[in-house]
Amino acid sequence: MARQQIATLTTDFGMQGPYVGAMKGVILQICPQAQIIDITHDIPSHDLLAAAFVLAQSLSYYPPGTVHVVVVDPGVGTDRAILAADYADQIVIFPDNGVITLVERLLPLKEIRVCCNTQYVPSEVSGTFHGRDIMAPLAGRILNGLSISVLGPRPGTYKLFDLPEPTAEEDRITGQVMQIDKFGNLMTNIPGPLLRQVAGRLDAVRTTCGDKDAGPLARSYGFVEPGTPLVVFNSMDMVEVAVNQGRADEFFDAEVGTQVVVIG
Amino acid sequence: MARQQIATLTTDFGMQGPYVGAMKGVILQICPQAQIIDITHDIPSHDLLAAAFVLAQSLSYYPPGTVHVVVVDPGVGTDRAILAADYADQIVIFPDNGVITLVERLLPLKEIRVCCNTQYVPSEVSGTFHGRDIMAPLAGRILNGLSISVLGPRPGTYKLFDLPEPTAEEDRITGQVMQIDKFGNLMTNIPGPLLRQVAGRLDAVRTTCGDKDAGPLARSYGFVEPGTPLVVFNSMDMVEVAVNQGRADEFFDAEVGTQVVVIG
Amino acid sequence: MARQQIATLTTDFGMQGPYVGAMKGVILQICPQAQIIDITHDIPSHDLLAAAFVLAQSLSYYPPGTVHVVVVDPGVGTDRAILAADYADQIVIFPDNGVITLVERLLPLKEIRVCCNTQYVPSEVSGTFHGRDIMAPLAGRILNGLSISVLGPRPGTYKLFDLPEPTAEEDRITGQVMQIDKFGNLMTNIPGPLLRQVAGRLDAVRTTCGDKDAGPLARSYGFVEPGTPLVVFNSMDMVEVAVNQGRADEFFDAEVGTQVVVIG
Repeated sequence: MARQQIATLTTDFGMQGPYVGAMKGVILQICPQAQIIDITHDIPSHDLLAAAFVLAQSLSYYPPGTVHVVVVDPGVGTDRAILAADYADQIVIFPDNGVITLVERLLPLKEIRVCCNTQYVPSEVSGTFHGRDIMAPLAGRILNGLSISVLGPRPGTYKLFDLPEPTAEEDRITGQVMQIDKFGNLMTNIPGPLLRQVAGRLDAVRTTCGDKDAGPLARSYGFVEPGTPLVVFNSMDMVEVAVNQGRADEFFDAEVGTQVVVIG
Repeated sequence: MARQQIATLTTDFGMQGPYVGAMKGVILQICPQAQIIDITHDIPSHDLLAAAFVLAQSLSYYPPGTVHVVVVDPGVGTDRAILAADYADQIVIFPDNGVITLVERLLPLKEIRVCCNTQYVPSEVSGTFHGRDIMAPLAGRILNGLSISVLGPRPGTYKLFDLPEPTAEEDRITGQVMQIDKFGNLMTNIPGPLLRQVAGRLDAVRTTCGDKDAGPLARSYGFVEPGTPLVVFNSMDMVEVAVNQGRADEFFDAEVGTQVVVIG
Repeated sequence: MARQQIATLTTDFGMQGPYVGAMKGVILQICPQAQIIDITHDIPSHDLLAAAFVLAQSLSYYPPGTVHVVVVDPGVGTDRAILAADYADQIVIFPDNGVITLVERLLPLKEIRVCCNTQYVPSEVSGTFHGRDIMAPLAGRILNGLSISVLGPRPGTYKLFDLPEPTAEEDRITGQVMQIDKFGNLMTNIPGPLLRQVAGRLDAVRTTCGDKDAGPLARSYGFVEPGTPLVVFNSMDMVEVAVNQGRADEFFDAEVGTQVVVIG
C-alpha cells in the first residue's frame, strides 16, 4: 500500500469564513489523495502562544511524514519568512513568528529551510492569504514527495519565544497559568517531574492559585466532589488546577499569568 | 478494494485546544489509512444527554464496521469502565456513564465488552485523557482488524439513563422539550407515531409549549410565515416545536424540560 | 490510482447537533471511500449571502469532480427545488434559493438540473432534513459515477440574488461592506481592478468607512502599526478595510451595508 499522505491544519481562521475551505481545496488540487485533518481553526486571533501549545501537544502523535500547516500569521505579507522544518519526521510549514517554540523544545529538529525558492514559492501572491497561496501549495507538493531541502537555505536564525519558567526553592515551586482549556482547566508551567522531585509526600502537597486554595493533588477530576477544586498531573504531565465538573477559570478568577504556588 | 476504515469522534473537547488533534494523530499513527470523521466536538461540557442524542441520530447512517469513539467522560481516571460495543455492526467505544442510552434503544446490541485486557489497554496512562491514551489506540487497532471480543469480559451491567417519557390520555399527550438545536428548534420526547395514533385529524391538532400556543402542525417550517410558530414531525419523526426562520427557544422561553402538550 | 472522490459540506447546521454527523454517514454509506471535507458548518442560520461568499471563495480551488453539498435551506420541505449543477467541473448540489449567485458570476456553468427523478430522489422523506434525505444520497451517488444529467430536466429559471454594486464617478468609488470575517476585516463590494483603474496614484488613495478615515492602502496588515486602520486588496482582490491585529468591525462600528468611499 502506498504511504498515506496526511496534511493537518492549525489556524486562527475560524470556520465561518472561506479561508479554511480554500486551503483544503488547494492542497487537494495538488494532492487529491491527501487526507486533510483539522487540528484546530479556533486559535484566538493572532494568539501565537495558544497555537504553540496546541502544536506541541498534537504533533508527536502523527505518523512520520505528516505535513502540518500552521497559519497563525499576523505578519502575513510582510518580510517575515515562511519556514519548513522537519521535527522527528513531522514536517511543519509555519511563519517565522515563534509559533514553533514549544515543538522545538519537545522534538529534535532534523532540518529547517526558508521557503523562498521561486520554483516552488510563487512571488505574485495576495498580500493577505499566504496560507492559500504559499503554504497550502507547498504542503501538497511535500505530500507528493518534494523534499524541504530544495525550498531554500537554512535560516541564519529563527524566532523562538521566551516563556516564563517556574522557580523552585526548597519545598516551594512558583509558577503560573499558561493555558486555559475549553473546560476552564488551568494548565500551569510547572512540570510534573519537578513537583515530584521537590515534594516530600504527594498527599501533603498544598497548592494555591491566585488567592485561593486549590485543593488536593488527585489522580483525576472525579476523586473530589463536583464543584470542588483539585490539582492533577495533566495529560502533558504538567501541573493543572481544575474543578471537578466545573470551571476553574471562574472559580479562581484566573487568566493566563495568574500565579500558582505549590508547596511540597 | 480494501474495506474502508472509518473512525468517528464525538466529544465535548471543543476544537480550540489540543485534545482533538492529539486523538486524531493517535488513530492515524496506528491506522494511517483511516478516514477520521468529526461528528462533533461541541457537546456542552459533560452533557451526557446531548451526546446520547447526537449519537443516536448519527450512528445508523454509517457503513458497517465504522468505529465510533465517544469522549464525554466526566469520570475519566476513576474506576468507571471503558466499554466497546457492536450495535448493528457499528463499533462504539465509550465510557460507562449512560451516554449509549439512546443508541441502545434504537439499534440491536450484538456484543459488548469491558476494555481491560492489558495486552490492548495500557495501565500506565494519564489520569485525565483516556480518549488519547486508551480509546483512540483501541479505535486504531479495531480498524486494523482487532475484534472487540478480545478486549475483556462482558460487563455484568452497564449504565443507562432513565429518560422522561410522555404520557398519553385520550386525545392529550403531555411531553417535554428534550433537546434544543442550533436553530433554536425544540425537539420533544413525543414520538410522531404516538401523536398520529392519538390524534383524530392532524389538521386539528393543538399544541402548547410552556404557556404559549405553538401553532399548527405543518409539513415543514416554510408553511407558516417567518417568525411564526409551528409544530413538525422532525427528521427523527419526533414532535418538534419551531419558529419559521426564528428561534423557538427564545419565542417560547423554553429550555430542556419545558412542558409540551399536544391535543389531538 | 482511482480518481479521488471528494465531497465537501457547507451548511448552517453548526457542529453541536446531529445533523452534520448524519449527513457524513449517509455519504459514506453510499460511497465509503469518499473523503469528506468540512468547508463550514458555521454559516449564520439561514444566511444565504454569507454562504454564497464562502462558496465563491472556495469552490474553484478543488479538484475537478469534487461534489459540493450546500445546505443553507430555510425553505426545506416546501416546493423550492433542489438543483445539481456543474460549474467548471465542480458539481454543486444546492437548494434553489440564490445561494449559488456568486459561484455563477465566477465560474462557467456547464450543466444544471432539477433533482426530481424519483429513481434517485426519494419522495417519502422528512419535511425538515433534505440534506440527509436527498442531497447527501445524491452526493454519494454522483461520487460513484452518476451523471447529474439524469436527475431531471434543466430548470426554466433559477434564483439569483441582486447584489449591491459599487458606483464609480471620476476618481470616486462608492461601495459598501459585504462581508465581515472572523478577524473583523470588512470585505467591500469594490473590486481591486476597478480601484486600480480609477485611482491616479495608489499611494494617494483615501478611503472612508462609515464616518471614519480608513488609513492608507497597504500591501498587507503589518505595514501599519498594530491597532491602526488600513485598506488592502484582499485575497479575492476586493478592497478590504482592516485594522492591523485589531477588529475593523468594532473600530468603524461597521456592519454589512456600511458605506465605503474610495477617492483615487
